[in-house]
Amino acid sequence: MQITILQNLLEANEKKAAEIRAFLRGYKILMLNLISSPGAGKTTLLEKTLPRLTQRYRIAVIEGDVETARDAARLVRYNVPVSLVNTQGGCHLESVSIEKALAAFNLNELDLIFIENVGNLVCPAEFDLGEDAKVAVMSTPEGDDKVMKYPLLFRESELVLLNKIDLLSATDFKRDVFYTDLKQVNAAIKVIEISCKNGAGLDQWLEWLERKIAAKKQAQ
Amino acid sequence: MQITILQNLLEANEKKAAEIRAFLRGYKILMLNLISSPGAGKTTLLEKTLPRLTQRYRIAVIEGDVETARDAARLVRYNVPVSLVNTQGGCHLESVSIEKALAAFNLNELDLIFIENVGNLVCPAEFDLGEDAKVAVMSTPEGDDKVMKYPLLFRESELVLLNKIDLLSATDFKRDVFYTDLKQVNAAIKVIEISCKNGAGLDQWLEWLERKIAAKKQAQ
Repeated sequence: MQITILQNLLEANEKKAAEIRAFLRGYKILMLNLISSPGAGKTTLLEKTLPRLTQRYRIAVIEGDVETARDAARLVRYNVPVSLVNTQGGCHLESVSIEKALAAFNLNELDLIFIENVGNLVCPAEFDLGEDAKVAVMSTPEGDDKVMKYPLLFRESELVLLNKIDLLSATDFKRDVFYTDLKQVNAAIKVIEISCKNGAGLDQWLEWLERKIAAKKQAQ
Repeated sequence: MQITILQNLLEANEKKAAEIRAFLRGYKILMLNLISSPGAGKTTLLEKTLPRLTQRYRIAVIEGDVETARDAARLVRYNVPVSLVNTQGGCHLESVSIEKALAAFNLNELDLIFIENVGNLVCPAEFDLGEDAKVAVMSTPEGDDKVMKYPLLFRESELVLLNKIDLLSATDFKRDVFYTDLKQVNAAIKVIEISCKNGAGLDQWLEWLERKIAAKKQAQ
């Protein structure tokens, strides 16, 4: 019974996600789904990213949070439309919430939508939101064993941003463990090591974003 | 429909949790439910705690993980019985799994059971496992805003272990924000600042544990 319900829920979610994906294709808008543990640095990443992109691209953010508008409040300062989804205890976003959040934007005036998912390494990876790609954000203080312990996210993602690389020497994080595990789980995944604190790697992240936006514009 | 199912699930979970609580009371075993984000340091905390307690107390661990036996393998080295629960994608433990895990232990020979929940700040807080107390493990690199963003865990917990205090100066974590938020969410909660790396605060944590074990032994 419960399994059937979950199956129905996941199927309904994927159907809606496919509709959203087809819908955004018409507008040539790139949508990225940022997923991480609580405190890995998704919001700070957006704070560092938005000022460097908003002169060239039109960007919006869908901000998922269990409670509070704190992260949304941090991002509206960058003069981008932010649509807040409070899950009221829910541990992930679902495509039906994305559909509602999109209704708040003028889609004729957007190139890129960031979804900041609820801070959670487990369930967000199971729910397709109609995005073009999932981006996993990891941070070095979380430890080098997260890839094997939460493999679905790393199987599903196109890019890993390994954040807080400035803290590497202060932690026990071993790069070789992380990269060996990652290669085993998803040999095709790309990694960019970044620090939102000292700016390391952010140029590479912006280049990756620009290539993805350009590819989306050219896609039929 | 989905809401009814969730309600039934939570009610069934609480009923089973109450049975477990009553059952362990007969054995005067203290059971603690450790909850944190991925990588906040629950397993390392147990690695530092077990060697200092096993000469005086008989301890077992129920190890919850989405996949892998990595954490369980780290803990069996300390010569304690470890019962592994792999949730196969599930983002939290439920009381029915605890009942099964307990069957692996000789309860006549235990004083203390640690449950290491799945790394997740959201759902584990919703599921009573029959524990005597929930212990929230936070770490400074996660940021000082987690209390307000994931308030249920902090409302439900009796103790917060603020881990990785050795990284405080390398992060933007502001103690006053953390403590102000915590007081608002749960004025009665106790906090111990710890570092599993340099040992800070671990004596206080052990004293807290010993008081809890003694109180359990004396309870009717």
